[in-house]
Amino acid sequence: MSSAPVVILVEPQLAENIGMVARAMANFGLSELRLVAPKNGWPKKGVREAASGATHVLDGAVVYATVGQAIADLNYVLATTARERGQMKRVTGPDEAMRDVATRTGQRVGILFGRERAGLSNDEVSLADAIVTFPVSPDFPSLNLAQGVLLVGYEWRRAAGLAQLPFSGEMLSPPATREAMASLVGTLEESLAEAGFYPPEKREIIARNMRDMLHRMAMTEQDVRTLRGALKALHGRRSRVASPRP
Amino acid sequence: MSSAPVVILVEPQLAENIGMVARAMANFGLSELRLVAPKNGWPKKGVREAASGATHVLDGAVVYATVGQAIADLNYVLATTARERGQMKRVTGPDEAMRDVATRTGQRVGILFGRERAGLSNDEVSLADAIVTFPVSPDFPSLNLAQGVLLVGYEWRRAAGLAQLPFSGEMLSPPATREAMASLVGTLEESLAEAGFYPPEKREIIARNMRDMLHRMAMTEQDVRTLRGALKALHGRRSRVASPRP
Repeated sequence: MSSAPVVILVEPQLAENIGMVARAMANFGLSELRLVAPKNGWPKKGVREAASGATHVLDGAVVYATVGQAIADLNYVLATTARERGQMKRVTGPDEAMRDVATRTGQRVGILFGRERAGLSNDEVSLADAIVTFPVSPDFPSLNLAQGVLLVGYEWRRAAGLAQLPFSGEMLSPPATREAMASLVGTLEESLAEAGFYPPEKREIIARNMRDMLHRMAMTEQDVRTLRGALKALHGRRSRVASPRP
Repeated sequence: MSSAPVVILVEPQLAENIGMVARAMANFGLSELRLVAPKNGWPKKGVREAASGATHVLDGAVVYATVGQAIADLNYVLATTARERGQMKRVTGPDEAMRDVATRTGQRVGILFGRERAGLSNDEVSLADAIVTFPVSPDFPSLNLAQGVLLVGYEWRRAAGLAQLPFSGEMLSPPATREAMASLVGTLEESLAEAGFYPPEKREIIARNMRDMLHRMAMTEQDVRTLRGALKALHGRRSRVASPRP
């Protein structure tokens, strides 16, 4: 499998953004951050707070003077940009780009992200092998720096086959046996019949619809026990109402 | 096609987060925001700045007292949660969840996002039809509120078939004709032969490798003109060096 790509921020300005980039990287298992000539120096006040715990990424961040130096040791470089640059390079979304990156076994890959306002210069883009852009709404295309990094990390993790969900929805109690279901349905139908719920000619079809509803619930043993209890309570109550004690 | 899902923030606290949620929504074409009992009231100071322009989402935001009221008019509700709740509901990632949502033509869908610290309560999760969770790194699973919304919006836009990239990488100048390529390659080989670059016995194989390199560049007419000029300049210089003027 390919190693996680390096995130390279070119002249980032706001501590909040750099911290949130570190957090977004950590969320999807990216750890190597490079900063090219951060505006107003480095480290920045407030950056650790913004990283809310992703300090290992910030502590490992390396500062470079130029983009050329920041990418010198890399084998493949992507440039993120929101607009056409008249540069004839391959342009893909983060999904396709990361699928490509994931196939580059043994290669060091870096992804360039531009300045908050101005993005990357055309000269900086020209240093990249390909361009990554995001399928944003044309009505509101301006993506925050950390959110561009987040989408790249999300797609890298998926492309690398690491995207497991933190938990699954499997049943905590086993599905009810068909016998338990049949018995519950039987009890319900009897109670309803006693309660005069069914117009005689409609009993069959109404009962079938209710069976369908109950089976759509994909009940567990526990669910069946709960409904049995509820049914018993209602039925008992109805009897008391029907024949009040002296 | 299904309409865009409603984003419902339950007791959100920080203006920065709500503003960034609005921005993330606008980035992917979501516009309907609902707020359940925002902490410390609404509107919040600084929220518009954090939305950096996505004010149409904030202006349309509606405040509700309870989750029940916020979802009353919806047909299908998803709850986002980072951890197992012992609730037997379908659990999917944002990609699968949004593919399902995109098929719900004519249904109003809402997605619940919990408090910054505590998330959603189990009672709130129990009001949802299914659970959405994110394939984050187990080492750093804490996803910022706006970033969870961003991933849902990104996947919804893709599932709805709206995810066009803002520009493509198509060539701005047509690919060079094979004739132009052959002629460039010919000139290069002649110049190199004249310059004594080829060991005679190796000329064929070296020439073939260079042809392969040049074709890998997928050159345009413009590229060919540029390289022709460069070659001419080098060749001229070499001649001058070889036979200096008196």
